[in-house]
Amino acid sequence: MTPSASTAAPVLPSRGRLRPLGLDEVRITGGFWAERQSVNATASLAHIAHWLEREGWIRNFDLVAAGGVAGERRGREFSDSEVYKFLEAMAWEIGRTGDPGLEATFRAVVHRVAGAQDVDGYLNTRFGHAGQPARWSDLQWGHELYCVGHLLQAAVARARTRPDADDGLVAVARRAADNICETFGPDGIDGLCGHPEIEPALVEFARVTGDDRYLDQAALFVERRGHGRLGDLEWRREYFQDEIPVRQATVLRGHAVRANYLAAGAVDVAAETDDPGLLKAVRDQWRSTVARRTYVTGGQGSRHQDEAFGEDWVLPPDRAYSETCAGVGSVMLAWRLLLACGDSGYADLIERTLFNVVSTSPAADGRSFFYTNTLHRREPGTVPDDDRPSIRAAAAQRAPWYEVSCCPTNVARTLASLAAYVASTDDEGLQIHQYVPGTIVHRPVDGAERRITVSTGYPVDGEIRVRVDGDDDRPWTLSLRVPGWAEQGATLTVGTETRPVRPGYATERRVWRAGDEVVLSLPMAPRFSHPDPRIDAVRGCVAVERGPLVFAVESVDLPEGGNIDGLRVDLGRPPTPAGNRVLVHCRRLDPPDRDWPYRGGGAGPATAAAEDLVEVPLIAYHDWANRGPSTMRVWIPTS
Amino acid sequence: MTPSASTAAPVLPSRGRLRPLGLDEVRITGGFWAERQSVNATASLAHIAHWLEREGWIRNFDLVAAGGVAGERRGREFSDSEVYKFLEAMAWEIGRTGDPGLEATFRAVVHRVAGAQDVDGYLNTRFGHAGQPARWSDLQWGHELYCVGHLLQAAVARARTRPDADDGLVAVARRAADNICETFGPDGIDGLCGHPEIEPALVEFARVTGDDRYLDQAALFVERRGHGRLGDLEWRREYFQDEIPVRQATVLRGHAVRANYLAAGAVDVAAETDDPGLLKAVRDQWRSTVARRTYVTGGQGSRHQDEAFGEDWVLPPDRAYSETCAGVGSVMLAWRLLLACGDSGYADLIERTLFNVVSTSPAADGRSFFYTNTLHRREPGTVPDDDRPSIRAAAAQRAPWYEVSCCPTNVARTLASLAAYVASTDDEGLQIHQYVPGTIVHRPVDGAERRITVSTGYPVDGEIRVRVDGDDDRPWTLSLRVPGWAEQGATLTVGTETRPVRPGYATERRVWRAGDEVVLSLPMAPRFSHPDPRIDAVRGCVAVERGPLVFAVESVDLPEGGNIDGLRVDLGRPPTPAGNRVLVHCRRLDPPDRDWPYRGGGAGPATAAAEDLVEVPLIAYHDWANRGPSTMRVWIPTS
Repeated sequence: MTPSASTAAPVLPSRGRLRPLGLDEVRITGGFWAERQSVNATASLAHIAHWLEREGWIRNFDLVAAGGVAGERRGREFSDSEVYKFLEAMAWEIGRTGDPGLEATFRAVVHRVAGAQDVDGYLNTRFGHAGQPARWSDLQWGHELYCVGHLLQAAVARARTRPDADDGLVAVARRAADNICETFGPDGIDGLCGHPEIEPALVEFARVTGDDRYLDQAALFVERRGHGRLGDLEWRREYFQDEIPVRQATVLRGHAVRANYLAAGAVDVAAETDDPGLLKAVRDQWRSTVARRTYVTGGQGSRHQDEAFGEDWVLPPDRAYSETCAGVGSVMLAWRLLLACGDSGYADLIERTLFNVVSTSPAADGRSFFYTNTLHRREPGTVPDDDRPSIRAAAAQRAPWYEVSCCPTNVARTLASLAAYVASTDDEGLQIHQYVPGTIVHRPVDGAERRITVSTGYPVDGEIRVRVDGDDDRPWTLSLRVPGWAEQGATLTVGTETRPVRPGYATERRVWRAGDEVVLSLPMAPRFSHPDPRIDAVRGCVAVERGPLVFAVESVDLPEGGNIDGLRVDLGRPPTPAGNRVLVHCRRLDPPDRDWPYRGGGAGPATAAAEDLVEVPLIAYHDWANRGPSTMRVWIPTS
Repeated sequence: MTPSASTAAPVLPSRGRLRPLGLDEVRITGGFWAERQSVNATASLAHIAHWLEREGWIRNFDLVAAGGVAGERRGREFSDSEVYKFLEAMAWEIGRTGDPGLEATFRAVVHRVAGAQDVDGYLNTRFGHAGQPARWSDLQWGHELYCVGHLLQAAVARARTRPDADDGLVAVARRAADNICETFGPDGIDGLCGHPEIEPALVEFARVTGDDRYLDQAALFVERRGHGRLGDLEWRREYFQDEIPVRQATVLRGHAVRANYLAAGAVDVAAETDDPGLLKAVRDQWRSTVARRTYVTGGQGSRHQDEAFGEDWVLPPDRAYSETCAGVGSVMLAWRLLLACGDSGYADLIERTLFNVVSTSPAADGRSFFYTNTLHRREPGTVPDDDRPSIRAAAAQRAPWYEVSCCPTNVARTLASLAAYVASTDDEGLQIHQYVPGTIVHRPVDGAERRITVSTGYPVDGEIRVRVDGDDDRPWTLSLRVPGWAEQGATLTVGTETRPVRPGYATERRVWRAGDEVVLSLPMAPRFSHPDPRIDAVRGCVAVERGPLVFAVESVDLPEGGNIDGLRVDLGRPPTPAGNRVLVHCRRLDPPDRDWPYRGGGAGPATAAAEDLVEVPLIAYHDWANRGPSTMRVWIPTS
């Protein structure tokens, strides 16, 4: 294959239905995501740097470089990957803003990482050095290939944002990738990593370098999985997705991050090897997963024990795991499927997951993070220690750092590269998938530069105004996504003509003139959402949504101790907007305490002590837990 | 204290409201439990012996005796305890039947255990010998004290069933207990075991031996807990009940087996030290636990991750852990509270737990066991390997053995000693708590022997006929438990007079004559049970119960693949009995598959495709999974 153009985007397939625009082409200039990108840039990256130093996870590279190691090394077996995700986040951020301070930090970290690389390209601080287990001696849990995967993704980010930089990261990555191809090629170790990640990374590295060897190696890893090469364990080999070949699986299962990363890699391989069978397998898995194994927030994974998907319809809100990194992985997968297939449903899930999982993880100040994103917190719990890594993935409040601290860096790299998930192009024109105030500039290979300005107060406001800023002499199609939740009432106004539009892509094809404007208007009335009756855990409940946002009731908004579990929402009164909030009407249920909670007799369930309706304010779910310990629920029982 | 009389019972408090009758006084002669005792005696004990040998868990003692060990040892750190529970089960069984073959096995195992005891009394095959970690070097996870606890309970069983036996087990236990008192006394290691068990065991050993030192040590262990001596861990120190002192806790929490064993030990200490404050603390904990943290089956523990109680009202049926051993622990605790306080609610929970947890664990043939007892199996799963220990605690079917195989021996010792949980005495007379066909013979210290015959087909039939077989010249009170579920319709017939009785104890005081008969009649119509509205996970569902039995729908009883999750029970038609089964009427719901399972609009949840009502047979929950892989649910949604 030939190297991809230097579009500044994390995913650049050489074929597929759509071609992404990079963050050199899409600028987010304000609104919801610009705010979060700013917090990420000004607070989170420094916070991450601080903790990576403090916990010794960067120093581990120094130790290896100095020839020491063993007992001195700190952190879990995958801590190298956090340094690489930090590098990736910085690379995107430098690409976005050119921050010189960050550039210096980036180069310094690359230098330290490079110093730890062995002469043959092997790079890992946990294996293969003085007093450590041998290289590749624990493929199941060692995460060596996983770590290199993140190294490659960091290098991809750098290559696409600063293609001429002399920091050396791409060369380090190439040596590491070569080492893997030599070690795990057709004649090498017949193994694979317990945690998928190397697969999408190798494909993207092939796209950057034009070297098919990396693609071939990725394809080999994808095909090797599913034959039981990894060991069994209490919660089954599906934890590693190693119980069924990717082509034969019908749904995502097992560890939710692993499942999404693997599927993302499989789509990448399918795209580059033109393998419709493999692509269809993953599309079908995705469809089942979204229909039966995904929370209303877009969150995935309902099991604490193994951070895994449950069976179909097992979506308990109170034991929702909904790991932040599974949300990031789900965005990665859906984006690749969108590029491959062009269906708006992929962009719908991306939007839902970004607004309700990825943006929920970081606190408003960007200095603490949810690792898991429950949909129902029953006990307020305590604020995690500010001064040491949390050992509790399911912390009641956001924690500054975790012993397994994959989420801060994963959120950071996603936010820094977010502009690359906004829009795409094809031979017909431009597609806008996510609505942010900003500009899009794209020059087709064979045509005039297209310039667009998007103005919107989305997601609080439903009007998205798209103005074409440059003349063109050939017609092209502007496609605007109409989200799946906008089933009724969405309109598209072009000039003076307004027409109803349905979920999917609303298109307008014409010869565009500077100043031409299209307005997509989405219905922003808050709404009740009812779960499929097969989801046992939320039977008799509704969620409240407005636009792409899921809402929640938080105890700090209720008087008198805020018993949220006694609320029974009155479906007869539609929810109403109130600024950033939504109001619903509820009755209060205060059932008597009994010695035994299961009552005989055929009289039906205990009835509410009917009181007057009270108005209850809901907040956007992603905003919860920013005001101290609280209880919270997304799914509210109906009266 | 003075040694307790040699009543053959596992718990003999020296004070309290009631005094238990032993299995030398109560004989179970037929019916539900006699059948299970017979399977236990003829199949399970041999099965256990086979696996203990096969897995090397008895041989570990030989290795220590021979001065070897380290790498040769097999099994987890607590495997010694399975050998001790096997000894305890055999001791009770020998006490029950006098089986000479079992007596020989018992002696042989005791001999091998005794050979591994160090000269100072220390006894454990995992620590303190060649190449092993030092004694007491891992109190948190090492289970050394836990193992000795089970050794002591085995010795108690032996002392109370064969007080004059010369096998040496009691002496071995005494040396081990002395070693613990020396090591962990007021001037010794200021530590405690990560898994409670030594506490009730030491108290009972004090009762057997009359030596207060063991009681003092137990009290010390109880008081030491709750101050954070054990390390923190991801799912909190409450896992070990080490976050709050026993006296201050308000509910059982953390690991459900640990919680029950500790509370049982605290009741024992409270009884022997006459400590009403400590007793009240545990009573209150129990009351909250039963009201808010217990499944309709009596099962406890809703978290797979840490085998733990969830918060109040967190009782998901599909992720119910409901560990068999937690059921055994709950019976242990409730029995001690019953003896201390005399309230029928304790016996109610014992009955419920015995019928729906303890008897659910073993397969009909007694050769495989559920480790966990879910209330909803969504996928039929596969039959565990017959030829090696299951690594899956939550196996879809009963497994012959587990890598952590605590349940088979725990069930075995409980079934073998079951007669000791049937009846008690006090200064007023006799109390019958559990209804089994059988005989009760008791001679009060100061009175004539009392003989009773109980005839009943319970729990299929609700008539319990109690005949007094001997004359007496002084009046005494016969008390019969009326279960909490028998809220309406229970009657007591004495002679020709029938009167309604309410839950609690129905009493009849008189001078009894041989042939006098009392008939308790319990209402056995099947009934719907509605959950407290705070139990989110089963909102809109009912359970079906009949007498003390919980029922379930199992897919193998349904036509055409048996989709149990689409059933919607019609509450308008009361459930009807059909032999051992119960019939309910259901509609079938077959919701359409959608791309996204959360539907907007205020129209309410997807409605059922109303078909004619179908009659659906339910089986007793404890009988499920005896006919191959299946799906099952206890809680059925209402239409």
